[in-house]
Amino acid sequence: MEKKIITISREFGSGGRTIGHKVAEKLGIPFYDKELVDQVALESGFAPKFVEEHGEHAPGRSLFSYAFAPQGVPGVMNGMSTADFLWNIQCSVILQLAEKGPCVIVGRNADYILKDREDVLHTYIHADKPFRADRIVRLYGESEKSPEARLNEKDRRRHVNYQHYTGRVWGTAQNYDICLNSGTIGIDACVDIIVDMVNASKEK
Amino acid sequence: MEKKIITISREFGSGGRTIGHKVAEKLGIPFYDKELVDQVALESGFAPKFVEEHGEHAPGRSLFSYAFAPQGVPGVMNGMSTADFLWNIQCSVILQLAEKGPCVIVGRNADYILKDREDVLHTYIHADKPFRADRIVRLYGESEKSPEARLNEKDRRRHVNYQHYTGRVWGTAQNYDICLNSGTIGIDACVDIIVDMVNASKEK
Repeated sequence: MEKKIITISREFGSGGRTIGHKVAEKLGIPFYDKELVDQVALESGFAPKFVEEHGEHAPGRSLFSYAFAPQGVPGVMNGMSTADFLWNIQCSVILQLAEKGPCVIVGRNADYILKDREDVLHTYIHADKPFRADRIVRLYGESEKSPEARLNEKDRRRHVNYQHYTGRVWGTAQNYDICLNSGTIGIDACVDIIVDMVNASKEK
Repeated sequence: MEKKIITISREFGSGGRTIGHKVAEKLGIPFYDKELVDQVALESGFAPKFVEEHGEHAPGRSLFSYAFAPQGVPGVMNGMSTADFLWNIQCSVILQLAEKGPCVIVGRNADYILKDREDVLHTYIHADKPFRADRIVRLYGESEKSPEARLNEKDRRRHVNYQHYTGRVWGTAQNYDICLNSGTIGIDACVDIIVDMVNASKEK
């Protein structure tokens, strides 16, 4: 079965987004990351920055769940929390994007949302903490928190979000066709492995 | 860093052993599976069949832990359970084999035992249950238990053994350089990916 769509799940700082971008470039297909956020923002009424920050984070269950809903939105949320409302729209946008044709989708639990499509290659990119800590400081700069604390916070949030909405455990090999350690393998080598797999699937 | 040693951890029925054998053949290096069992048997005094059946299973904690110890063995076991005694010898044999030179080692928690060597490529092979069920019936024949029950039992035992002796969760992507779904990728394609990775590491 030809793999037309590639989902890239990734640990923060592992280079998954870079890998996805390069894979899409080499295959000449669209890369959905910011475009996906924008589409969810458009359909939900939330600001893109809010969608980006909350789309993969722990589901809000506090009294303030609705506090950030834009004007007019609470009415259409049908009693759902902000997180559940965003999740539903995110699912719908990802399913629509996959229908449009070949593409690379980074993050946002797309591996789970597209699990029933056979033309999807599910990948997971991870790396050890020193590698990731070094990368986030180089790419995103220093912050008040230590790189370790930033990684721990993002890891925990993605873990909780993934488990909550999919019932699966984040980082479990069985959820993916291929998992790669970008720290030991190298980012460009990960790109080549994924591109080769997609090309090989066309010959089957 | 050149990867000289390849550990292959695998779900029962996923074809990990076949992949390991083919990788070793293509790279022209030794393949340790039965040889490892024989060496542990020799050093422990247990029968090879016993080592094979218990080396990756849940650690025995019952009153019968010592029941299968061969004559003379309980004396040298120093109060350890059979499982702990086997584990210690298995660790020592795997560390010795790795010292001897390039090789492929299948199973037996070698990924954990060799985690501190940088010249090791750690791989994990898995596949969904229908793929594995079909393979075990074709390779090992029917038995009184259903293929599903046989898979569940082996999965559970390897999971418990791995967690007990390594403190890690079986099947977690972060423990490996690469994890492959042999069911969706194909056994020969898994072989090629691993061989290419080892060859690429020689150029670095």
